[in-house]
Amino acid sequence: MLVGPEELIRAELARHRAADHPRLSIINATEVVTMDDPLEVALRRKKDSSMRVAINLVKDGAAQACVSAGNTGALMAVSRYVLKTIPGVDRPAICTLIPNQKDAPTYMLDLGANVDCEPQHLHQFALMGSALVSALDEKPMPTVGLLNIGEEDIKGNEVVKQTAALLRADHERGLLNFYGNVEGNDIFKGTTDIVVCDGFVGNVVLKASEGLGRFVKSALTAEFKSNPLNMLGAIIARGAIKSFSRRMNPSRYNGASLLGLRGLVFKSHGGEDAYGFEWAIKRAYEAAKHDLLARITTAIAELMPQEGGVQAAAAPNAVQN
Amino acid sequence: MLVGPEELIRAELARHRAADHPRLSIINATEVVTMDDPLEVALRRKKDSSMRVAINLVKDGAAQACVSAGNTGALMAVSRYVLKTIPGVDRPAICTLIPNQKDAPTYMLDLGANVDCEPQHLHQFALMGSALVSALDEKPMPTVGLLNIGEEDIKGNEVVKQTAALLRADHERGLLNFYGNVEGNDIFKGTTDIVVCDGFVGNVVLKASEGLGRFVKSALTAEFKSNPLNMLGAIIARGAIKSFSRRMNPSRYNGASLLGLRGLVFKSHGGEDAYGFEWAIKRAYEAAKHDLLARITTAIAELMPQEGGVQAAAAPNAVQN
Repeated sequence: MLVGPEELIRAELARHRAADHPRLSIINATEVVTMDDPLEVALRRKKDSSMRVAINLVKDGAAQACVSAGNTGALMAVSRYVLKTIPGVDRPAICTLIPNQKDAPTYMLDLGANVDCEPQHLHQFALMGSALVSALDEKPMPTVGLLNIGEEDIKGNEVVKQTAALLRADHERGLLNFYGNVEGNDIFKGTTDIVVCDGFVGNVVLKASEGLGRFVKSALTAEFKSNPLNMLGAIIARGAIKSFSRRMNPSRYNGASLLGLRGLVFKSHGGEDAYGFEWAIKRAYEAAKHDLLARITTAIAELMPQEGGVQAAAAPNAVQN
Repeated sequence: MLVGPEELIRAELARHRAADHPRLSIINATEVVTMDDPLEVALRRKKDSSMRVAINLVKDGAAQACVSAGNTGALMAVSRYVLKTIPGVDRPAICTLIPNQKDAPTYMLDLGANVDCEPQHLHQFALMGSALVSALDEKPMPTVGLLNIGEEDIKGNEVVKQTAALLRADHERGLLNFYGNVEGNDIFKGTTDIVVCDGFVGNVVLKASEGLGRFVKSALTAEFKSNPLNMLGAIIARGAIKSFSRRMNPSRYNGASLLGLRGLVFKSHGGEDAYGFEWAIKRAYEAAKHDLLARITTAIAELMPQEGGVQAAAAPNAVQN
């Protein structure tokens, strides 16, 4: 289902000779949330935005997942407002994929939805990330690393130390596969499947990495174009350069997940081409197919205090230690 | 002055035919702080370590600066214990240099000495970083950016928002050149001369960047070696590859500063060659030559409440707003 201003979508489909594609349908929405719209506008004024209409389709069960390339803050706010959070989830999180040296994704969360986190929030992020990777990559017990400034238990700030205690307790109960602390370089080494951090750190690391990536690309391009001999070398070795670019291409890792909501919402980068968009849709499809929502709901339910649930009640108490 | 076990130093100097160099002297120290030594051992047990003896030379005025490639945590702890902090500085910080797209360094602090920062700490880091860049690069008013998850004033966590208010007040008083919020990618764009953040974020970003750098290098090398045609291209374009490597070479940016102490201490990466070490020594030399200590002392003194100093007292109050 393609959601948006119907005429625009029809015109685009016609251009691609797909106007009558049997597996495409159009859901009209008269408004669009722009990249500059304040949350206020996205939430209260544009009630017929493509974003809102698409998320409503998820809420109503007409769609099993929503994929959007729009304003991330608005997407999270509207999703949260329309879908609400899963019981036991204090705050939804954004989980993105980063290429690593093992030619696999490192899943990192949170990526900016939560800037001041308490241990129980990071704890929930770990469980939700673990559920996501088990659904998308069919790994029953993916490894979880806690982003810190050293591997030793004594390192880090108070929030991280208390989170580590919660995750170790989960590990002992068999709820997740906690590797321990990881450092910044482990993200790209692929030491763990999942890296958990607060939204401030995650956002800064992601943007710094994107910035360094652009810097490397522009410096390398400039050198290869600096004189005819270098250009010749680059032409001869173009296979290597293409293969390198493909390996570093973030499009392959497109499709961040908004986790903790009562519905599946995925975020594509705004500037993606068809290849990148395909990956975001594929991830949403896999999440629906492998019932990500049920996995997260179950994982979080394990933590909630319940009658007779002595062990389940133990984890939140550990925060006060 | 070369500080360490005398026999080892003499043997190395002989190997390099510099045993009688008129501008080299040897100061014996019988112990060495290892990379694994707990701070406790560095501080209380190894009182004749090369690190301790070298820092004592700075304290006694025999040396104007100390350059060490040793254990960073121990270097900071011993420096702080021996030299003490400058009046008004709550916590010393570590400031490192990162290459940016403008082929200049971005100075970033703190890099791991302080994991839980209050606004007044980040405020002091900004002033100390500004003093450092003015001394090393002879820029009278270097630009200061506050690392955040967006450029707008409303973005970020509470600590960052309150810090921004303090820095804006300094800017209005002409104490520093506050650019405003910067994001992770700005570090590599070189948007500001200085980027201020807490030690947790700084450490994670630095290690993530180093990790991504190694990933890019290994992936690129592997592609160029993947078949004879690619190897041929790489040989023809070797000028471009060398120039690119030189530009990305972190050795040129070697020499982090321990700021806020009553003495100059610089930290070299452990694995540096002569070229990298030269840069660390050069930075220590420039800092001494341009009287970095006096610059920091003056900058911090401006902030301290004093009789009749209405404006000076205003900044700390802003924290409570």
